[in-house]
Amino acid sequence: MEPKQIVIVGAGFGGVAVAESLASLPNCQITMIDRRNFHLFQPLLYQVAMAGLNPSDITVPLRSLFRDQKNIQVIMGDVNRLDFTGQTVTFGETSRPFDYLVLACGSKHGYFGNEHWEEFAPGLKSLEQAIEIRSRILTAFELAEIETDPEIQKQLLTFVVVGGGPTGVEIAGAIAEITANTLVKDFQTADLNQVSVILVEGGSRVLSAFPRTLSAVAQKDLESLGVEVRTQVFASELSKEGLRLGDEYVKARTIIWAAGVSPSELNDQVPGPKDSAGRISVTPDLSLLNHKNIFVIGDQAIVIDEKGFSLPGVAPVAVQEGHFVGQTIRADFSGKARGEFKYFDKGIMATIGRSKAVVSTMGFNFSGFFAWLTWVFVHVVYLMRFRNRVFVMMQWSWSYFTFGHGARLITNKDWRFYRPDQKEKN
Amino acid sequence: MEPKQIVIVGAGFGGVAVAESLASLPNCQITMIDRRNFHLFQPLLYQVAMAGLNPSDITVPLRSLFRDQKNIQVIMGDVNRLDFTGQTVTFGETSRPFDYLVLACGSKHGYFGNEHWEEFAPGLKSLEQAIEIRSRILTAFELAEIETDPEIQKQLLTFVVVGGGPTGVEIAGAIAEITANTLVKDFQTADLNQVSVILVEGGSRVLSAFPRTLSAVAQKDLESLGVEVRTQVFASELSKEGLRLGDEYVKARTIIWAAGVSPSELNDQVPGPKDSAGRISVTPDLSLLNHKNIFVIGDQAIVIDEKGFSLPGVAPVAVQEGHFVGQTIRADFSGKARGEFKYFDKGIMATIGRSKAVVSTMGFNFSGFFAWLTWVFVHVVYLMRFRNRVFVMMQWSWSYFTFGHGARLITNKDWRFYRPDQKEKN
Repeated sequence: MEPKQIVIVGAGFGGVAVAESLASLPNCQITMIDRRNFHLFQPLLYQVAMAGLNPSDITVPLRSLFRDQKNIQVIMGDVNRLDFTGQTVTFGETSRPFDYLVLACGSKHGYFGNEHWEEFAPGLKSLEQAIEIRSRILTAFELAEIETDPEIQKQLLTFVVVGGGPTGVEIAGAIAEITANTLVKDFQTADLNQVSVILVEGGSRVLSAFPRTLSAVAQKDLESLGVEVRTQVFASELSKEGLRLGDEYVKARTIIWAAGVSPSELNDQVPGPKDSAGRISVTPDLSLLNHKNIFVIGDQAIVIDEKGFSLPGVAPVAVQEGHFVGQTIRADFSGKARGEFKYFDKGIMATIGRSKAVVSTMGFNFSGFFAWLTWVFVHVVYLMRFRNRVFVMMQWSWSYFTFGHGARLITNKDWRFYRPDQKEKN
Repeated sequence: MEPKQIVIVGAGFGGVAVAESLASLPNCQITMIDRRNFHLFQPLLYQVAMAGLNPSDITVPLRSLFRDQKNIQVIMGDVNRLDFTGQTVTFGETSRPFDYLVLACGSKHGYFGNEHWEEFAPGLKSLEQAIEIRSRILTAFELAEIETDPEIQKQLLTFVVVGGGPTGVEIAGAIAEITANTLVKDFQTADLNQVSVILVEGGSRVLSAFPRTLSAVAQKDLESLGVEVRTQVFASELSKEGLRLGDEYVKARTIIWAAGVSPSELNDQVPGPKDSAGRISVTPDLSLLNHKNIFVIGDQAIVIDEKGFSLPGVAPVAVQEGHFVGQTIRADFSGKARGEFKYFDKGIMATIGRSKAVVSTMGFNFSGFFAWLTWVFVHVVYLMRFRNRVFVMMQWSWSYFTFGHGARLITNKDWRFYRPDQKEKN
């Protein structure tokens, strides 16, 4: 019997969970396709943007991840066509047939139809964006140091974060913190007391997915760090100079976008109902209506829980969905009936700064130092499991002496350098 | 009495050595200007290109480096004008007067007048270039994995390194090694036995700065790793497709340039004699003729030793010159006579691969495992002194819990995002 072809598009939390669930499944050939050659631990991406962690601390090369899993082939490619009738996916000029297809392409930041704002206010979804944001923030301080015009210096030291979800809160808190704790010792001319960090949220409170009491704590914590929190205000008219916040025009050289999600471009090629954000509706077993062999998971899908709420776009949802799809394919292989996906909600958490966090889990809501310890513990445990190592040092000294090459990341945008028209020329 | 203004341009090994030598010197204000916000440990830059080390392993933010040195201000800026009459340096739109000026701007790779080759064959002088080369090499393997045309696959797996000095030898050896040791386990379709690494040297032997016997050992070591060494051949006609090597046209998708050095653009603004490579001639105390308060050091200067040979463009030369200039300025301050610079040559070394290196020091020439251990020991000691830390792990866990922000590098090319025309607009 021919082995079944299982194609997974996207190596985020969802896609990797599917692949891992199918390890050692006989009679199948898995193809994992991603634009990047690495898996990203996205919950700590803001730490790269804030210069707290290195890119290699929160990434792992896909080929290392799957080196010992023999039924999988990793491909770095950009999927541009889905053919549901012919059952193929196409990346570049190469097509590959599938018996099962798992779409786990994630989402990107959306600008509510103003995509040209991206230039002035990068989002924080990819490693490149994190490096770009890190560079902009640090450069703003460098330029403030040599700026002689006090008005421009003030603009260089004004940072606006748009979006009061966990990412926006984490970034705003971190900018205020590195200013007060680290940078203030490093600069001579620039008056870092002039630093202004503004967090803008269109809704009535920050961290709207959390209970109201925790939103209030988070806002107070942010304010104690010096962050100005503005709710029920929308950002508009973004430019290099600044942006409009309601009635006021704020001059700021650094704007960071942590609001709005837009779907993968591939969603246009997927038939059937979608929600207003463009996410794809799936059946209770996470497959497409009328396509039981095609699954959509993670941020790309909209899944409604028993209470009628849509599941949030966070790592635990994607991971559980991925494992469920893996089990479902296994069930198909062994002729068993499929189950229905149920999300087991362990809770949500966000950190505002050192010793400051909010946690909502299993009916318990808490904040402060203990919440922060919980946040650190959970993230360190997951990060270490993710990196499968106890100390980064070991990896470093190991790779230094063995040339083990832990840093194999392709992060520049021009990896297509090789490709475009060359094939034609030959 | 007004403090003396000492301006240092360039924070490489030479510039940093000057600044450190002047620590605690009273009655002076030092300005250190560099295009980057970090100091780079260049001898291990090829390890970043080969994915063995992270950028943050071989860099240190300048502001951290000089945080405790109170008489110095660090400026990230691009010096574009030197005024020797008015005694000012200009970066961007800002000018700064100097009583002493130290030029330590280094060099960049030269393409013998064919600067358009750079696109096809990046050099290895900056961190950005190392990241670009890393990306190209890894991408070539990724594309070979999905390439169906065997002819193109062969081109993707052909790597040409131009230049048989230490950098070229280290890169060629490392590509052959990661192919054999690491990547061969990671790819399924691509036949890594097809990998071809060609090292091209225009002279009669690789490592021409070393004794002949060691050049021969290095060539044999390279060949044992599978590298094809071609001497007395010049590269020309570079394109995306490949390059001409003497009579033969070699199709190769990845070319790395490790040959030729061209001077800093600032050298055009410096009067007086230069050598054929554009390096600036200096007097025995490393100052310019008729400008006793202006020093040129490192790769930017040409210094002739007592045997009539010019000193090589390596870190120890720059460091010793930097310390000498620091002492000379101190001598001026205390009214003592200036000395003459003498280079103390501790020797040279290059590594070809794991357990393979050549060392020439104090009349001793040796190679093999012991030479490699020497190379590792010297580099680890210097790197650790440089990073001022025993374990990278400590830095990681420390920065993770304290937000100490070790990774504060601005590596993208667009850090001028903020600046160009904005000032006019305001």
